Amino acid sequence: MKVYEYKGFVNPVRVRIALAEKGLTSRVEFVQVDLLSGAHRTPEFLAKNPSGTVPVLELDDGTTIAECTAITEYLDHLDGQPTLTGRTAKERAIVHMMQRRAEVELLDAFGTYFHHATPGLGEKIELYQNREWGERNLKRGMAGMHYLDKVLSQQTYLAGDHFTMADITAFAGMSLADFLKLEVPETLTHLKAWHARVAARPSIAAA
Amino acid sequence: MKVYEYKGFVNPVRVRIALAEKGLTSRVEFVQVDLLSGAHRTPEFLAKNPSGTVPVLELDDGTTIAECTAITEYLDHLDGQPTLTGRTAKERAIVHMMQRRAEVELLDAFGTYFHHATPGLGEKIELYQNREWGERNLKRGMAGMHYLDKVLSQQTYLAGDHFTMADITAFAGMSLADFLKLEVPETLTHLKAWHARVAARPSIAAA
Repeated sequence: MKVYEYKGFVNPVRVRIALAEKGLTSRVEFVQVDLLSGAHRTPEFLAKNPSGTVPVLELDDGTTIAECTAITEYLDHLDGQPTLTGRTAKERAIVHMMQRRAEVELLDAFGTYFHHATPGLGEKIELYQNREWGERNLKRGMAGMHYLDKVLSQQTYLAGDHFTMADITAFAGMSLADFLKLEVPETLTHLKAWHARVAARPSIAAA
Repeated sequence: MKVYEYKGFVNPVRVRIALAEKGLTSRVEFVQVDLLSGAHRTPEFLAKNPSGTVPVLELDDGTTIAECTAITEYLDHLDGQPTLTGRTAKERAIVHMMQRRAEVELLDAFGTYFHHATPGLGEKIELYQNREWGERNLKRGMAGMHYLDKVLSQQTYLAGDHFTMADITAFAGMSLADFLKLEVPETLTHLKAWHARVAARPSIAAA
Protein backbone atom coordinates (compact mmCIF):
# COMPACT_ATOMS: atom_id res chain seq x y z
CA MET A 1 0.00 0.00 0.00
CA LYS A 2 1.04 3.61 -0.60
CA VAL A 3 -0.12 6.65 1.32
CA TYR A 4 0.16 10.05 -0.33
CA GLU A 5 0.46 12.63 2.44
CA TYR A 6 2.16 15.77 3.69
CA LYS A 7 3.90 14.76 6.85
CA GLY A 8 2.78 16.54 10.01
CA PHE A 9 -0.45 17.94 8.58
CA VAL A 10 -3.52 17.00 10.55
CA ASN A 11 -5.42 14.82 8.11
CA PRO A 12 -2.39 12.68 7.20
CA VAL A 13 -1.73 12.30 10.94
CA ARG A 14 -5.21 10.78 11.34
CA VAL A 15 -4.28 7.97 8.96
CA ARG A 16 -0.82 7.50 10.51
CA ILE A 17 -2.50 7.01 13.91
CA ALA A 18 -4.96 4.48 12.45
CA LEU A 19 -2.08 2.61 10.76
CA ALA A 20 -0.11 2.48 14.02
CA GLU A 21 -3.15 1.36 16.04
CA LYS A 22 -3.65 -1.51 13.57
CA GLY A 23 0.06 -2.38 13.42
CA LEU A 24 0.18 -1.70 9.69
CA THR A 25 2.65 1.19 9.42
CA SER A 26 5.52 -0.97 8.15
CA ARG A 27 3.36 -2.21 5.25
CA VAL A 28 2.99 1.30 3.82
CA GLU A 29 5.20 3.33 1.50
CA PHE A 30 4.66 7.02 2.27
CA VAL A 31 4.84 9.49 -0.62
CA GLN A 32 5.10 13.20 0.16
CA VAL A 33 2.86 15.66 -1.73
CA ASP A 34 4.14 19.21 -1.28
CA LEU A 35 0.97 21.17 -0.57
CA LEU A 36 2.86 24.44 -0.22
CA SER A 37 3.96 24.30 -3.86
CA GLY A 38 0.52 23.15 -5.01
CA ALA A 39 1.52 19.55 -5.81
CA HIS A 40 -2.01 18.48 -4.81
CA ARG A 41 -3.46 20.45 -7.72
CA THR A 42 -1.52 18.82 -10.55
CA PRO A 43 -3.40 16.62 -13.07
CA GLU A 44 -1.38 13.60 -11.85
CA PHE A 45 -2.53 14.01 -8.27
CA LEU A 46 -6.10 14.98 -9.18
CA ALA A 47 -6.34 11.69 -11.10
CA LYS A 48 -5.73 9.94 -7.77
CA ASN A 49 -8.07 12.21 -5.80
CA PRO A 50 -10.31 14.66 -7.67
CA SER A 51 -10.89 16.53 -4.39
CA GLY A 52 -7.18 17.42 -4.31
CA THR A 53 -6.69 16.54 -0.65
CA VAL A 54 -4.26 14.35 1.26
CA PRO A 55 -4.06 11.67 2.53
CA VAL A 56 -4.84 9.20 -0.24
CA LEU A 57 -4.40 5.45 0.17
CA GLU A 58 -3.38 3.56 -2.99
CA LEU A 59 -3.97 -0.17 -2.88
CA ASP A 60 -1.72 -2.64 -4.69
CA ASP A 61 -4.41 -3.07 -7.38
CA GLY A 62 -4.26 0.68 -8.10
CA THR A 63 -7.52 1.60 -6.35
CA THR A 64 -7.22 4.99 -4.66
CA ILE A 65 -9.13 5.77 -1.46
CA ALA A 66 -9.45 9.34 -0.22
CA GLU A 67 -11.18 10.72 2.90
CA CYS A 68 -9.86 9.76 6.32
CA THR A 69 -13.01 7.97 7.44
CA ALA A 70 -12.96 5.80 4.32
CA ILE A 71 -9.25 4.98 4.71
CA THR A 72 -9.80 4.15 8.38
CA GLU A 73 -12.72 1.86 7.52
CA TYR A 74 -10.42 0.03 5.09
CA LEU A 75 -7.53 -0.38 7.51
CA ASP A 76 -9.82 -1.36 10.37
CA HIS A 77 -11.53 -4.13 8.39
CA LEU A 78 -8.42 -5.64 6.75
CA ASP A 79 -8.08 -8.23 9.53
CA GLY A 80 -11.81 -8.67 10.15
CA GLN A 81 -11.31 -7.45 13.72
CA PRO A 82 -12.40 -3.83 13.81
CA THR A 83 -11.19 -1.88 16.82
CA LEU A 84 -11.52 1.71 15.63
CA THR A 85 -14.95 1.72 13.95
CA GLY A 86 -17.06 -0.43 16.29
CA ARG A 87 -18.09 -4.08 16.21
CA THR A 88 -21.89 -4.09 16.65
CA ALA A 89 -24.52 -2.03 14.85
CA LYS A 90 -24.88 0.22 17.89
CA GLU A 91 -21.14 0.65 18.40
CA ARG A 92 -20.68 1.48 14.71
CA ALA A 93 -23.46 4.06 14.91
CA ILE A 94 -22.00 5.78 17.97
CA VAL A 95 -18.45 5.83 16.53
CA HIS A 96 -19.66 7.35 13.26
CA MET A 97 -21.86 9.89 15.05
CA MET A 98 -19.07 11.04 17.34
CA GLN A 99 -16.52 11.01 14.51
CA ARG A 100 -18.79 13.27 12.48
CA ARG A 101 -19.36 15.62 15.42
CA ALA A 102 -15.62 15.86 16.11
CA GLU A 103 -15.13 16.63 12.41
CA VAL A 104 -17.88 19.22 11.99
CA GLU A 105 -17.67 20.94 15.35
CA LEU A 106 -13.88 20.89 15.89
CA LEU A 107 -11.54 19.80 13.08
CA ASP A 108 -13.40 21.26 10.09
CA ALA A 109 -14.28 24.40 12.06
CA PHE A 110 -10.62 25.10 12.88
CA GLY A 111 -9.63 24.08 9.33
CA THR A 112 -12.02 26.65 7.90
CA TYR A 113 -10.64 29.27 10.28
CA PHE A 114 -7.09 28.39 9.16
CA HIS A 115 -7.86 28.57 5.43
CA HIS A 116 -10.12 31.64 5.54
CA ALA A 117 -9.05 33.91 8.41
CA THR A 118 -5.29 33.31 8.61
CA PRO A 119 -2.69 33.23 5.80
CA GLY A 120 -3.39 29.46 5.64
CA LEU A 121 -1.17 27.72 3.08
CA GLY A 122 -0.09 31.09 1.61
CA GLU A 123 -1.46 33.40 -1.05
CA LYS A 124 -0.46 31.17 -3.97
CA ILE A 125 -2.70 28.38 -2.60
CA GLU A 126 -5.45 30.27 -0.75
CA LEU A 127 -6.97 31.84 -3.86
CA TYR A 128 -10.29 32.55 -2.16
CA GLN A 129 -10.77 33.56 1.44
CA ASN A 130 -13.89 34.64 3.32
CA ARG A 131 -12.59 36.13 6.55
CA GLU A 132 -15.98 36.54 8.21
CA TRP A 133 -16.76 32.87 7.60
CA GLY A 134 -13.35 31.93 8.96
CA GLU A 135 -13.85 33.96 12.14
CA ARG A 136 -17.28 32.46 12.65
CA ASN A 137 -15.78 28.99 12.39
CA LEU A 138 -13.21 29.86 15.05
CA LYS A 139 -16.14 30.47 17.40
CA ARG A 140 -17.73 27.21 16.31
CA GLY A 141 -14.53 25.28 17.01
CA MET A 142 -14.20 26.79 20.49
CA ALA A 143 -17.84 25.84 21.18
CA GLY A 144 -16.92 22.36 19.91
CA MET A 145 -14.25 22.11 22.62
CA HIS A 146 -16.89 22.84 25.25
CA TYR A 147 -19.21 20.21 23.77
CA LEU A 148 -16.47 17.56 23.75
CA ASP A 149 -15.54 18.42 27.34
CA LYS A 150 -19.13 17.76 28.36
CA VAL A 151 -19.14 14.38 26.60
CA LEU A 152 -15.82 13.47 28.22
CA SER A 153 -17.16 14.34 31.68
CA GLN A 154 -19.32 11.21 31.32
CA GLN A 155 -16.99 8.72 29.63
CA THR A 156 -13.32 7.92 28.95
CA TYR A 157 -13.38 8.24 25.16
CA LEU A 158 -15.67 10.00 22.72
CA ALA A 159 -17.60 6.89 21.73
CA GLY A 160 -17.57 5.24 25.16
CA ASP A 161 -15.02 3.03 26.94
CA HIS A 162 -12.69 2.44 23.99
CA PHE A 163 -10.40 4.55 21.83
CA THR A 164 -11.92 4.83 18.33
CA MET A 165 -11.86 6.76 15.07
CA ALA A 166 -13.84 9.52 16.82
CA ASP A 167 -10.93 10.14 19.19
CA ILE A 168 -8.50 10.25 16.27
CA THR A 169 -10.56 12.95 14.56
CA ALA A 170 -10.89 14.99 17.75
CA PHE A 171 -7.16 14.62 18.47
CA ALA A 172 -6.45 16.01 15.00
CA GLY A 173 -8.76 18.92 15.77
CA MET A 174 -6.91 19.63 19.00
CA SER A 175 -3.56 19.43 17.17
CA LEU A 176 -4.80 21.99 14.68
CA ALA A 177 -5.93 24.24 17.54
CA ASP A 178 -2.46 23.92 19.04
CA PHE A 179 -0.81 24.76 15.70
CA LEU A 180 -3.06 27.83 15.49
CA LYS A 181 -1.98 28.80 19.04
CA LEU A 182 -5.54 28.65 20.32
CA GLU A 183 -5.71 28.30 24.09
CA VAL A 184 -7.80 25.49 25.53
CA PRO A 185 -9.87 27.14 28.29
CA GLU A 186 -8.65 26.08 31.76
CA THR A 187 -12.18 25.09 32.75
CA LEU A 188 -12.24 22.26 30.19
CA THR A 189 -10.59 19.78 32.52
CA HIS A 190 -12.19 16.66 31.02
CA LEU A 191 -11.03 17.59 27.53
CA LYS A 192 -7.51 18.29 28.79
CA ALA A 193 -7.33 14.98 30.68
CA TRP A 194 -8.59 13.08 27.61
CA HIS A 195 -6.05 14.91 25.42
CA ALA A 196 -3.16 13.89 27.70
CA ARG A 197 -4.46 10.30 27.84
CA VAL A 198 -4.73 10.05 24.07
CA ALA A 199 -1.40 11.80 23.39
CA ALA A 200 0.31 9.14 25.54
CA ARG A 201 -0.79 6.28 23.25
CA PRO A 202 2.14 4.67 21.41
CA SER A 203 0.28 5.10 18.10
CA ILE A 204 0.24 8.84 18.56
CA ALA A 205 3.78 9.18 19.80
CA ALA A 206 4.77 7.30 16.61
CA ALA A 207 2.63 9.42 14.26
CA MET B 1 -37.26 2.60 17.32
CA LYS B 2 -38.30 6.21 16.92
CA VAL B 3 -37.09 8.61 14.23
CA TYR B 4 -37.35 12.34 14.90
CA GLU B 5 -37.63 14.07 11.54
CA TYR B 6 -39.30 16.77 9.48
CA LYS B 7 -41.04 14.95 6.71
CA GLY B 8 -39.93 15.79 3.18
CA PHE B 9 -36.67 17.48 4.19
CA VAL B 10 -33.62 16.01 2.54
CA ASN B 11 -31.73 14.56 5.50
CA PRO B 12 -34.78 12.79 6.95
CA VAL B 13 -35.45 11.42 3.46
CA ARG B 14 -31.98 9.80 3.49
CA VAL B 15 -32.94 7.77 6.54
CA ARG B 16 -36.40 6.92 5.17
CA ILE B 17 -34.73 5.51 2.04
CA ALA B 18 -32.29 3.45 4.13
CA LEU B 19 -35.18 2.14 6.26
CA ALA B 20 -37.16 1.14 3.16
CA GLU B 21 -34.12 -0.51 1.53
CA LYS B 22 -33.66 -2.60 4.68
CA GLY B 23 -37.38 -3.39 5.07
CA LEU B 24 -37.48 -1.68 8.47
CA THR B 25 -39.93 1.18 7.92
CA SER B 26 -42.83 -0.53 9.73
CA ARG B 27 -40.70 -0.96 12.87
CA VAL B 28 -40.27 2.81 13.28
CA GLU B 29 -42.46 5.40 14.95
CA PHE B 30 -41.88 8.75 13.22
CA VAL B 31 -42.04 11.92 15.33
CA GLN B 32 -42.25 15.28 13.57
CA VAL B 33 -40.00 18.14 14.74
CA ASP B 34 -41.25 21.44 13.33
CA LEU B 35 -38.07 23.11 12.11
CA LEU B 36 -39.93 26.17 10.87
CA SER B 37 -41.03 27.05 14.41
CA GLY B 38 -37.59 26.22 15.86
CA ALA B 39 -38.63 22.97 17.59
CA HIS B 40 -35.10 21.64 16.92
CA ARG B 41 -33.63 24.32 19.20
CA THR B 42 -35.59 23.53 22.37
CA PRO B 43 -33.73 22.08 25.38
CA GLU B 44 -35.76 18.86 25.04
CA PHE B 45 -34.61 18.28 21.48
CA LEU B 46 -31.03 19.42 22.09
CA ALA B 47 -30.84 16.78 24.83
CA LYS B 48 -31.46 14.19 22.11
CA ASN B 49 -29.10 15.83 19.59
CA PRO B 50 -26.83 18.69 20.72
CA SER B 51 -26.24 19.58 17.05
CA GLY B 52 -29.95 20.44 16.72
CA THR B 53 -30.43 18.59 13.45
CA VAL B 54 -32.88 16.00 12.19
CA PRO B 55 -33.11 13.08 11.72
CA VAL B 56 -32.35 11.45 15.06
CA LEU B 57 -32.84 7.73 15.68
CA GLU B 58 -33.87 6.79 19.21
CA LEU B 59 -33.32 3.16 20.15
CA ASP B 60 -35.59 1.30 22.54
CA ASP B 61 -32.90 1.59 25.26
CA GLY B 62 -33.02 5.39 24.94
CA THR B 63 -29.75 5.78 23.01
CA THR B 64 -30.03 8.58 20.47
CA ILE B 65 -28.11 8.45 17.18
CA ALA B 66 -27.74 11.54 15.00
CA GLU B 67 -25.99 12.00 11.63
CA CYS B 68 -27.34 10.14 8.59
CA THR B 69 -24.19 8.10 8.01
CA ALA B 70 -24.27 6.86 11.61
CA ILE B 71 -27.98 6.01 11.45
CA THR B 72 -27.45 4.20 8.14
CA GLU B 73 -24.55 2.21 9.61
CA TYR B 74 -26.86 1.12 12.44
CA LEU B 75 -29.76 0.10 10.22
CA ASP B 76 -27.48 -1.64 7.73
CA HIS B 77 -25.80 -3.79 10.40
CA LEU B 78 -28.93 -4.77 12.38
CA ASP B 79 -29.30 -8.01 10.41
CA GLY B 80 -25.57 -8.63 9.95
CA GLN B 81 -26.05 -8.44 6.17
CA PRO B 82 -24.93 -4.97 5.10
CA THR B 83 -26.13 -3.93 1.66
CA LEU B 84 -25.78 -0.15 1.84
CA THR B 85 -22.34 0.29 3.45
CA GLY B 86 -20.25 -2.44 1.78
CA ARG B 87 -19.25 -5.94 2.87
CA THR B 88 -15.46 -6.09 2.46
CA ALA B 89 -12.80 -3.64 3.62
CA LYS B 90 -12.42 -2.30 0.09
CA GLU B 91 -16.16 -2.01 -0.53
CA ARG B 92 -16.61 -0.19 2.78
CA ALA B 93 -13.81 2.22 1.90
CA ILE B 94 -15.26 3.04 -1.51
CA VAL B 95 -18.79 3.51 -0.14
CA HIS B 96 -17.57 5.86 2.60
CA MET B 97 -15.35 7.80 0.19
CA MET B 98 -18.13 8.31 -2.33
CA GLN B 99 -20.67 9.07 0.39
CA ARG B 100 -18.39 11.78 1.72
CA ARG B 101 -17.81 13.24 -1.73
CA ALA B 102 -21.54 13.31 -2.46
CA GLU B 103 -22.02 15.04 0.88
CA VAL B 104 -19.24 17.63 0.59
CA GLU B 105 -19.45 18.38 -3.12
CA LEU B 106 -23.22 18.22 -3.63
CA LEU B 107 -25.57 17.95 -0.63
CA ASP B 108 -23.70 20.15 1.85
CA ALA B 109 -22.80 22.63 -0.89
CA PHE B 110 -26.45 23.12 -1.88
CA GLY B 111 -27.43 23.11 1.80
CA THR B 112 -25.02 25.97 2.49
CA TYR B 113 -26.37 27.85 -0.51
CA PHE B 114 -29.93 27.34 0.81
CA HIS B 115 -29.15 28.52 4.35
CA HIS B 116 -26.87 31.42 3.40
CA ALA B 117 -27.91 32.83 0.02
CA THR B 118 -31.68 32.23 -0.01
CA PRO B 119 -34.29 32.94 2.70
CA GLY B 120 -33.63 29.35 3.88
CA LEU B 121 -35.87 28.41 6.81
CA GLY B 122 -36.89 32.05 7.30
CA GLU B 123 -35.51 34.98 9.25
CA LYS B 124 -36.53 33.64 12.66
CA ILE B 125 -34.32 30.57 12.11
CA GLU B 126 -31.55 31.85 9.83
CA LEU B 127 -30.02 34.22 12.38
CA TYR B 128 -26.68 34.41 10.56
CA GLN B 129 -26.19 34.37 6.80
CA ASN B 130 -23.05 34.87 4.72
CA ARG B 131 -24.35 35.44 1.21
CA GLU B 132 -20.97 35.36 -0.50
CA TRP B 133 -20.22 31.97 1.08
CA GLY B 134 -23.65 30.74 0.04
CA GLU B 135 -23.15 31.83 -3.58
CA ARG B 136 -19.72 30.20 -3.67
CA ASN B 137 -21.25 26.95 -2.47
CA LEU B 138 -23.82 27.09 -5.26
CA LYS B 139 -20.90 27.00 -7.71
CA ARG B 140 -19.33 24.16 -5.76
CA GLY B 141 -22.54 22.14 -5.91
CA MET B 142 -22.87 22.64 -9.67
CA ALA B 143 -19.23 21.51 -10.07
CA GLY B 144 -20.17 18.52 -7.90
CA MET B 145 -22.86 17.55 -10.43
CA HIS B 146 -20.21 17.52 -13.17
CA TYR B 147 -17.93 15.36 -11.04
CA LEU B 148 -20.69 12.84 -10.29
CA ASP B 149 -21.61 12.71 -13.97
CA LYS B 150 -18.03 11.76 -14.77
CA VAL B 151 -18.04 8.99 -12.16
CA LEU B 152 -21.37 7.69 -13.48
CA SER B 153 -20.04 7.59 -17.04
CA GLN B 154 -17.91 4.64 -15.84
CA GLN B 155 -20.26 2.73 -13.55
CA THR B 156 -23.94 2.18 -12.67
CA TYR B 157 -23.87 3.53 -9.12
CA LEU B 158 -21.54 5.87 -7.24
CA ALA B 159 -19.64 3.12 -5.43
CA GLY B 160 -19.70 0.59 -8.29
CA ASP B 161 -22.28 -1.99 -9.40
CA HIS B 162 -24.60 -1.74 -6.42
CA PHE B 163 -26.87 0.90 -4.90
CA THR B 164 -25.34 2.12 -1.60
CA MET B 165 -25.38 4.87 1.01
CA ALA B 166 -23.38 7.02 -1.43
CA ASP B 167 -26.29 7.00 -3.88
CA ILE B 168 -28.71 7.93 -1.10
CA THR B 169 -26.62 10.97 -0.20
CA ALA B 170 -26.28 12.06 -3.82
CA PHE B 171 -30.01 11.54 -4.40
CA ALA B 172 -30.70 13.83 -1.44
CA GLY B 173 -28.35 16.40 -2.98
CA MET B 174 -30.22 16.23 -6.29
CA SER B 175 -33.56 16.55 -4.46
CA LEU B 176 -32.31 19.70 -2.77
CA ALA B 177 -31.14 21.07 -6.15
CA ASP B 178 -34.62 20.38 -7.51
CA PHE B 179 -36.25 22.10 -4.51
CA LEU B 180 -33.98 25.10 -5.14
CA LYS B 181 -35.06 25.07 -8.82
CA LEU B 182 -31.50 24.55 -10.01
CA GLU B 183 -31.36 23.18 -13.55
CA VAL B 184 -29.29 20.06 -14.16
CA PRO B 185 -27.21 20.89 -17.27
CA GLU B 186 -28.45 18.94 -20.32
CA THR B 187 -24.93 17.67 -20.99
CA LEU B 188 -24.89 15.65 -17.75
CA THR B 189 -26.57 12.66 -19.34
CA HIS B 190 -25.00 10.05 -17.04
CA LEU B 191 -26.14 11.90 -13.92
CA LYS B 192 -29.64 12.26 -15.33
CA ALA B 193 -29.85 8.57 -16.25
CA TRP B 194 -28.61 7.56 -12.78
CA HIS B 195 -31.13 9.93 -11.17
CA ALA B 196 -34.02 8.37 -13.10
CA ARG B 197 -32.76 4.87 -12.25
CA VAL B 198 -32.49 5.65 -8.55
CA ALA B 199 -35.79 7.55 -8.38
CA ALA B 200 -37.54 4.43 -9.73
CA ARG B 201 -36.46 2.28 -6.75
CA PRO B 202 -39.42 1.26 -4.55
CA SER B 203 -37.53 2.56 -1.48
CA ILE B 204 -37.45 6.04 -2.95
CA ALA B 205 -40.99 6.06 -4.25
CA ALA B 206 -42.03 5.13 -0.68
CA ALA B 207 -39.85 7.77 1.02
